[in-house]
Amino acid sequence: MRIAVDAMGGDHGPAVVVAGAVEGARAFGVALDLVGQEATVRRELAKVDAAGIDVVVLDAPDEIGMDEHPAQAVRRKPRSSIAVALEAVRDGRSGAMLSAGNSGAVMAAALLVLGRVPGVDRPAIASFLPSSGKRSLVLDLGAVTDPRPPHLVQFAQMGSLYVKRALGVERPTVALLSNGEEPSKGNQLVRDASSLLAATPGIDFRGNVEGKDVTRGVADVIVTDGFTGNVALKVAEGVATLVTDALRAEVTATLPRKLAALALRPAFRAVGARLDYAETGGAPLLGVNGMVVIAHGRSNAKAIRNAIGVACRGAESDATGTIRQLMARGTSDPPPTTAAGPPEVPINGNASTAR
Amino acid sequence: MRIAVDAMGGDHGPAVVVAGAVEGARAFGVALDLVGQEATVRRELAKVDAAGIDVVVLDAPDEIGMDEHPAQAVRRKPRSSIAVALEAVRDGRSGAMLSAGNSGAVMAAALLVLGRVPGVDRPAIASFLPSSGKRSLVLDLGAVTDPRPPHLVQFAQMGSLYVKRALGVERPTVALLSNGEEPSKGNQLVRDASSLLAATPGIDFRGNVEGKDVTRGVADVIVTDGFTGNVALKVAEGVATLVTDALRAEVTATLPRKLAALALRPAFRAVGARLDYAETGGAPLLGVNGMVVIAHGRSNAKAIRNAIGVACRGAESDATGTIRQLMARGTSDPPPTTAAGPPEVPINGNASTAR
Repeated sequence: MRIAVDAMGGDHGPAVVVAGAVEGARAFGVALDLVGQEATVRRELAKVDAAGIDVVVLDAPDEIGMDEHPAQAVRRKPRSSIAVALEAVRDGRSGAMLSAGNSGAVMAAALLVLGRVPGVDRPAIASFLPSSGKRSLVLDLGAVTDPRPPHLVQFAQMGSLYVKRALGVERPTVALLSNGEEPSKGNQLVRDASSLLAATPGIDFRGNVEGKDVTRGVADVIVTDGFTGNVALKVAEGVATLVTDALRAEVTATLPRKLAALALRPAFRAVGARLDYAETGGAPLLGVNGMVVIAHGRSNAKAIRNAIGVACRGAESDATGTIRQLMARGTSDPPPTTAAGPPEVPINGNASTAR
Repeated sequence: MRIAVDAMGGDHGPAVVVAGAVEGARAFGVALDLVGQEATVRRELAKVDAAGIDVVVLDAPDEIGMDEHPAQAVRRKPRSSIAVALEAVRDGRSGAMLSAGNSGAVMAAALLVLGRVPGVDRPAIASFLPSSGKRSLVLDLGAVTDPRPPHLVQFAQMGSLYVKRALGVERPTVALLSNGEEPSKGNQLVRDASSLLAATPGIDFRGNVEGKDVTRGVADVIVTDGFTGNVALKVAEGVATLVTDALRAEVTATLPRKLAALALRPAFRAVGARLDYAETGGAPLLGVNGMVVIAHGRSNAKAIRNAIGVACRGAESDATGTIRQLMARGTSDPPPTTAAGPPEVPINGNASTAR
């Protein structure tokens, strides 16, 4: 399995992406296509220990900035690291593509280069928010700001298949994010989508949930429009940052507190890990013809490493292929697996155990 | 100043509401109209020390449950504690009304009993989320799930006036919640509202902000539709609960950790206070003809106490009257204060200092 990595993307530049990608390649046992301006990528690659890892540098002279207008940038820069990495997936060279760059540009380029899965109207970004129990895959997180009810049904179908295939969840449950659990609550979109979800066969729809339920593991998949999902994700991020910053300031305010805090370091680390977006690493873009993983612009090396894991699990479980099969049939039940088909064994947490 | 309190509302029942209201009356120097089934209220009142506090019990034989359909319940139960408390405000007996009961019913009854301020199309629920810096008043939090752009402009106007009058913020800034700072981001509502806000005189509109900015004090007022606002509020609540629960479990996992945690208790308390919705207490319903404060259904006595403070500040600063004046003129600049008008001095945090 090869993963094409947009080496130029992300707020911290190629150094962090290359270091994280090499770490991830070692951890998950995959080969890398590092895509970017060749001299830059080779320079960063020389700084890290990539011994024993199969790394190829694919030259991409154009670079798309974080603030560029997505569609325009994609049109004007056909040889960007984003486009070249996606072409590696399209051409079957790489099994998945990963970028921490301009996420709008990644989406636009993915539609252009890979195209939508037939039957999917709107690809969606899916990821996990921190949770006290099992984690819920939330989608969409920003790809589709004004979806219609059938789009939310497709999100539910794609999300269910993804957690089933890539994460080994046997019978995924689905909930719809609302401003109250009662079916009478919700905005117009939610009220319409709720009855549509309940009426769609093949989705184990459990009804509407509130914002506070997102972090409580109430369902395997929680669907929402990309506007609300994006706000929810970033509010969660904001509160987590607020708490960790406040805690840090308080426990280091005096010397006795500092000493006591030293003894609690493992406890703080454990809580911090739960809130750390870097533990999740990346969010798959579901509904395009190929495995695309979008990492946070602020990704550090650990986040990139873990995003490689997300890309690897998605590619090895053939999540895209399963979605393609389903959407062609228009139901959430994947067809029976033939001998030649993908394995039916659940593929758990660390993808390397599945090989 | 008298505050009418719905003594029957809230998940924890009359005991908690009565105790918290009496505490609040003492703290903020106000009189109470406790509204509910008289025998029940008197029984709970006998259990607390209300010496020196002016308390009147107003009998209201009907009770509206937390799960009842708001509009239906309000119609069927004209003598509910919610309705009778609102009538006390309408009749000029009480300066404000507070309820931790069925918030939908409070809104429906407030529209029926008090009516909308002329010029306000949709009343909105406004409150604060936890923040690292100054706190932003966020509205709407659930009253209007499908607003149109002009409604968001009215939210901005009402929110600005409220923080100016009730909290003494001199020149309130306004931001619009979106899925990115760029004006090109947002759903259709946000894109339309953003340009409308920018074009409306009297609002100090600073543009769009993201979910992570809600907890960073980027503006005095953040406007959003009630669906997104409600999700944001509850996601914040969920993450805060997640962190405090996880931290509690981790720091009490072993005896050495427990001992170290003991030394950090003041630090934990300080962080906890920042995240505690009970510190805020209640959310004013802006745009109805009278000061109405909605407290969390889960309110404990401290939350009710602090909600009395919110009600008291709102009533004493005549936030409603100011909104009425503004909306009649259709601009966010309050008219020049005459000698007989409300005082122009800022009224800060603790309302008791203003008396």
